[in-house]
Amino acid sequence: MDFFEAVEKRYTHKEFFLPDAVPLSDLERIAKAGITAPSGNNGQSVRLVILPDRAAVQPLCDIFPTNSLRTAPAAIALFTDGATQKGESNFEIEDYSAATENMLLAATALGYSSVWLDYPYYNKPDTEKAARELLGAPKSCTLRVVVPVGLPDGPGSRRAKLPHGERVFIGKYKGENGK
Amino acid sequence: MDFFEAVEKRYTHKEFFLPDAVPLSDLERIAKAGITAPSGNNGQSVRLVILPDRAAVQPLCDIFPTNSLRTAPAAIALFTDGATQKGESNFEIEDYSAATENMLLAATALGYSSVWLDYPYYNKPDTEKAARELLGAPKSCTLRVVVPVGLPDGPGSRRAKLPHGERVFIGKYKGENGK
Repeated sequence: MDFFEAVEKRYTHKEFFLPDAVPLSDLERIAKAGITAPSGNNGQSVRLVILPDRAAVQPLCDIFPTNSLRTAPAAIALFTDGATQKGESNFEIEDYSAATENMLLAATALGYSSVWLDYPYYNKPDTEKAARELLGAPKSCTLRVVVPVGLPDGPGSRRAKLPHGERVFIGKYKGENGK
Repeated sequence: MDFFEAVEKRYTHKEFFLPDAVPLSDLERIAKAGITAPSGNNGQSVRLVILPDRAAVQPLCDIFPTNSLRTAPAAIALFTDGATQKGESNFEIEDYSAATENMLLAATALGYSSVWLDYPYYNKPDTEKAARELLGAPKSCTLRVVVPVGLPDGPGSRRAKLPHGERVFIGKYKGENGK
């Protein structure tokens, strides 16, 4: 799919998925797009665990049930490894966000729906730890997001967006050339 | 350009640009891809200022000279507006990172080179403030990154990447099914 078409078609799928299996080769392509995103100081902090079928997804769902995970036929769990970060700066959030966006676009480009599912783990040390240990990741890692992948069971809803002209300006912020 | 081709071709261009102008319509497409990225709680914190020509880029370069800005024929400055963030969570870093990745891929898809240029402003309150005021952004905004856009003056270098098998696993982190 054309890049700009993928950007336009990507949306946050909060509804259910169809049970159709996702070929492992598609999940591998999505994962590869994820780790090909840039990273701060080339630290490459992102680590991915592909959960290729319902049996692999269900234990995560048991830790923190969500609509998206309850029906997802596959998913990719994204960790950042803090041990990769050298010096005073830490780019784990930047790294994981760029990688996640690549995976959401890749899933879209292959015809799937997905969602940036971070809230089961964000500021929730207990569920983050339980999910991390379930997936066998070392203590230096943090589970940041799970990206469900599957065919949607409907068109899905889209949230309202601010007008373009309130977010993009030319030359100067809200300047006389802004539009 | 195909989405996966754009992902593979994107790289961090730290060298010079050719002086060829970038059509405003291309800069607008790149900006639109940026604000179409997802945002935490749909907060849409990202604001963009398109710097459409060398005269618009030069003042930023004067504040903090870098190779990339010194020759860039155009650029897009990305702010996040903290006033958009409600509740206890703040997703400005996630938001800006996803938007920046979209813009880097969009620039690549249109045949340009680019770079995630954050270090002139990251943890540098003086230059961040000077650049923010130069561009007329309010105090609630933070300048996060400048994305130069232009044709590269050569193929550019690529940094070494970890092997795929050290970052992507199947079923379990470095599990027996990992590859």
